[in-house]
Amino acid sequence: MYNIAIAGAGAMGGRIGTQIKEAGYNVTLIDYWDEHIKKINDDGLEIKTETSTYNVSITAKKPSEVNEQYDLLIILTKAMDASAMINALYDRDAIKASTAILTMMNGLGHDERFAEVVPKSQIFLAVTMWTAGLRGPGQLLLEGSGTIELQRADGEADYRTEEINNIFNKAGLNSVISDNVFISIWSKATLNSVLNPLCTILDKRIGELGAYDRARDMIQPLIEEIVAVANARNVDIKTDDMVHKIEAAYPESTQGLHYPSMHQDLHKGRLTEIDFLNGQIAKYGKDLNISTPLNTMLTHQVHELELDYV
Amino acid sequence: MYNIAIAGAGAMGGRIGTQIKEAGYNVTLIDYWDEHIKKINDDGLEIKTETSTYNVSITAKKPSEVNEQYDLLIILTKAMDASAMINALYDRDAIKASTAILTMMNGLGHDERFAEVVPKSQIFLAVTMWTAGLRGPGQLLLEGSGTIELQRADGEADYRTEEINNIFNKAGLNSVISDNVFISIWSKATLNSVLNPLCTILDKRIGELGAYDRARDMIQPLIEEIVAVANARNVDIKTDDMVHKIEAAYPESTQGLHYPSMHQDLHKGRLTEIDFLNGQIAKYGKDLNISTPLNTMLTHQVHELELDYV
Repeated sequence: MYNIAIAGAGAMGGRIGTQIKEAGYNVTLIDYWDEHIKKINDDGLEIKTETSTYNVSITAKKPSEVNEQYDLLIILTKAMDASAMINALYDRDAIKASTAILTMMNGLGHDERFAEVVPKSQIFLAVTMWTAGLRGPGQLLLEGSGTIELQRADGEADYRTEEINNIFNKAGLNSVISDNVFISIWSKATLNSVLNPLCTILDKRIGELGAYDRARDMIQPLIEEIVAVANARNVDIKTDDMVHKIEAAYPESTQGLHYPSMHQDLHKGRLTEIDFLNGQIAKYGKDLNISTPLNTMLTHQVHELELDYV
Repeated sequence: MYNIAIAGAGAMGGRIGTQIKEAGYNVTLIDYWDEHIKKINDDGLEIKTETSTYNVSITAKKPSEVNEQYDLLIILTKAMDASAMINALYDRDAIKASTAILTMMNGLGHDERFAEVVPKSQIFLAVTMWTAGLRGPGQLLLEGSGTIELQRADGEADYRTEEINNIFNKAGLNSVISDNVFISIWSKATLNSVLNPLCTILDKRIGELGAYDRARDMIQPLIEEIVAVANARNVDIKTDDMVHKIEAAYPESTQGLHYPSMHQDLHKGRLTEIDFLNGQIAKYGKDLNISTPLNTMLTHQVHELELDYV
């Protein structure tokens, strides 16, 4: 039977995992959080939606408890935990030559880091607009709707791409196969590389950041650095589009009242994903001889704050 | 009799004013703070030093009460209040053709702004290492020692330079005439343009900022921008010297335990002097076609915070 694992059973891993499970597939959640794993195995994952609350029975285990192989392995850990997770599963012999390894995480460079462990032909990239919340161990909050775009990381056609896309659509996840997933990955990363660090450093909600009358003067040079790096990597995003995408997040009717996830991470005492956003952009820039002083500065500023909060 | 006014009777204006008064000169303090002015006129300025507390009798008035002319006018307002002050005194006919107008304020570009009101030949620049504190209306805290360097703003020799230098030395202020005061002004402005915004944005003491293991990687590109602008303006400061000067402020034995003045301003609900530090550097950079993304970003970040605190 087609065997699926979700590595990283946080809010988004829980959503994707339970929706696929409910579509009739064999799904295992893999995580390190003992209390969460115990609750899931004892009672199932409790799902609260806009209209109802119900439980989905699903298996959860730690990487050290894995003793099977997967056809599809979806990585939804925090960015900084992904390499350790994939290495742990590789060591447990959970990855076979035909396993599709799909990263759906925010941030940049995951495919390159995974390619240090498995052949690039096994790596698939997805970007999602779904959101999810974790209310406590074993308790998900699933609101709103979303989409998924996916592609094999090297851009080659693959029967597994169709297979994964079908699974996602049977699970109601509104998936499409992309012929340039990097556009979506970099668009989302640009948004996150502007709003996440600035709202975190300045301790502001997204709408408060945008309330500054020279906000565009502030963000545009930062976006220009990111776009220059993306373009040099043959990802065709445009500064104006990105400016408008970010400004569309300012109103209260969109994301204005929210703190970005990085702000939440920091205030919960967790390390941030800054090295996989602005830090990764600065690293790419260095390799390409493109100057990225603003991305570098924001990376340092967030690391400075991690010293206080984490 | 030689008539001296100190415009801006804060901590430093109070120190300079009372020391000159005690040396036997005719000194008037000019300020806008009613309670402070009343206290000074009623009881004199109360001075607390390491060893004693005493009062210095001195006259204080508002610009609108000025009805005399000054030989020496020392400007020690907050940077953003200086232009309004000099214009007010000009309108009161307090400035005659021979008046020496000396700015001792932090920040950059004061001479250029003053030159919009009076001929550049009347403008003198000083930079001081003295410090002072204001404990409340009419109450100064004067600790430590310091020095003053001064020069006519256009670099020309002038009998008034000697005159001012003599007054300062009679007042125990350890003054010297410089032949390149801009080196000292830009050195101090570089220090202030690194430590002030970063400690303010990150809400850190100077030592805490320096505790980050990549602090040098963070500050060096910022310093390089400032040095490039200074050098293009024929001010010969060097990046390495500035890095070391700033790092010398990190230990607890120097300035490590202190928040810079900009942090104090913001947390007291006052506008900061960012436009006269990083903002002025960015403005000079633009005129000179030198890119200053980091100075521009820090300026915006501090203005963002002013929206929350002021």
